[in-house]
Amino acid sequence: MPNIVFNYFPVKALGEPSRLLLAYGGEGFEDKRISPDNWPAYKPSTPFGQMPVMDIDGKQYAQSYAIARYLGRKYGLAGADIEEDFQIDQNVEYLNDIRAKAASVHYEPDADYKDKKQAENSKNVYPAMLEKLDAILKANNGHLACGKLTWGDFVFAGIYAYLKTMLQTPDLDAQYPSFKKLEEKVYSLPKVKAWADTAPKCDF
Amino acid sequence: MPNIVFNYFPVKALGEPSRLLLAYGGEGFEDKRISPDNWPAYKPSTPFGQMPVMDIDGKQYAQSYAIARYLGRKYGLAGADIEEDFQIDQNVEYLNDIRAKAASVHYEPDADYKDKKQAENSKNVYPAMLEKLDAILKANNGHLACGKLTWGDFVFAGIYAYLKTMLQTPDLDAQYPSFKKLEEKVYSLPKVKAWADTAPKCDF
Ligand SMILES: N[C@@H](CCC(=O)N[C@@H](CS)C(=O)NCC(=O)O)C(=O)O
Ligand SMILES: N[C@@H](CCC(=O)N[C@@H](CS)C(=O)NCC(=O)O)C(=O)O
Repeated sequence: MPNIVFNYFPVKALGEPSRLLLAYGGEGFEDKRISPDNWPAYKPSTPFGQMPVMDIDGKQYAQSYAIARYLGRKYGLAGADIEEDFQIDQNVEYLNDIRAKAASVHYEPDADYKDKKQAENSKNVYPAMLEKLDAILKANNGHLACGKLTWGDFVFAGIYAYLKTMLQTPDLDAQYPSFKKLEEKVYSLPKVKAWADTAPKCDF
Repeated sequence: MPNIVFNYFPVKALGEPSRLLLAYGGEGFEDKRISPDNWPAYKPSTPFGQMPVMDIDGKQYAQSYAIARYLGRKYGLAGADIEEDFQIDQNVEYLNDIRAKAASVHYEPDADYKDKKQAENSKNVYPAMLEKLDAILKANNGHLACGKLTWGDFVFAGIYAYLKTMLQTPDLDAQYPSFKKLEEKVYSLPKVKAWADTAPKCDF
C-alpha cells in the first residue's frame, strides 16, 4: 500500500472531492487538516504555495481538479473512452464556472459592491446557470456526466456544500432536489460513508 | 475526414489553444469567428451559452480546457501515462490560476478599485506566480510539463498574448524570455505555422 497524505485546510471546499475519491479508492490515507495557524510553516514547501496538496510516497500532487481527475482514473471512475472523458471534463469545468462566479462575489471585500453584485447575480446569472446544471443531472440519470458514476460526481458531492455557501442560497436543496440527491448518492457509497462517518464535520 | 467547426469570438483568448491544436491535428477545420453582433443569435444553441464551442460532425464540445485536453489526446499530445497526464493537468490548472487572477482585475468595472487591485497584485501577487511559472518551464526543457511537447504547451502558446493583456504588463517577453520562446516554439511547428500565417491577426 502506498503512503498517502492529503493536506488541506479544515474545510470541504476544494479538498473534499479528492478526500471522497481517496476514501472510495480504499488504499487508506492520512486526512491531514492544516489549521490557518500552521499553514505559513507548510506553505513554502508546497508546489504553488497553496493547498490542497496530496503526497504519495513523497511525490507531491497539487491543483484540486488535476488531483481529482488523476484519482478518478486510478480508481476506475474515468470514462470508457476519450468521448466520455471529455464529457466529464466539460461538465466539471462548467460546475467550476458556477463556483468561481459565486466565489468572486463571496470574497469581495467592498461590502456595498458585494451586495450589489449578489443581488444582480441572484437575479440574472445564477438561476440560468443552476437550471442548466439541473438539466445536466436529469439528462444523466442523476449523475454529472455519462449517465453513470464517475469522478465528476465526487467533485459535485465534495463541492456542493461549498457551492451553497458561495451562492449564499441555503435553500438550494429544496429548489433543486437533484443536487442534494447526487451529494447523498456519493456520500452513501459504502467506503465513502465509512470514512465520512468518522471524518471531522465541516459546514462547507 | 470529419467536419470540424470551431466557433469563437474574433480574438485569441480562450479559443486560440484549441485552434492551434486543430491546426496541428491536420484534419482541417472551419475557423469560425463570430462577431459580438452575431453572438446573440448563436448563443441559445450553445451548450452553456458561451464560446468556444467545437462542432464535430454535428456533436458539440464546450469548455475550453476540456476541448484542449480532448484534442491533445486525439492528436498524440497527451502524457505517456496517468502520472504525465497529471503533470500536464496540474500545470495547465496553475496557468489558469494566473489568468483568472489577472482577469478578475482586468474586468473590474470600478476604476478606482481596479487601479488599487492592479497595483497590489503587481507588487505582491504576480511576480511570485510568474517566477514559479518561469521555473516550471526551465525545469521542463522549455515546456509546460513532462520535459517535452504536450497539449499543455498549446494552451500556453494560445493564451500567452491574452495573459499579457490581462496582466497589463506588455514587457513580459523581456522579463521572462522562456515565455516568448515557448509561444514561438508552438507557433513555428510546421502545420501550426502554415495555419497561423493565413489566420486573422489578433492582439490577444
Ligand atoms: N487552483 C488551485 C487553487 C487552490 C487555492 O485557492 N487554495 C487556497 C485554499 S482554497 C489556499 O491554499 N489559500 C492559502 C494561500 O493562498 O496562502 C486548486 O484548485 O487547487
Ligand atoms: N469556462 C468557459 C468560459 C467561457 C467564456 O467565458 N466565454 C466567454 C468568452 S471568453 C463568452 O462566451 N462570453 C459571452 C457570453 O457569456 O455571452 C471556457 O473556458 O470555455
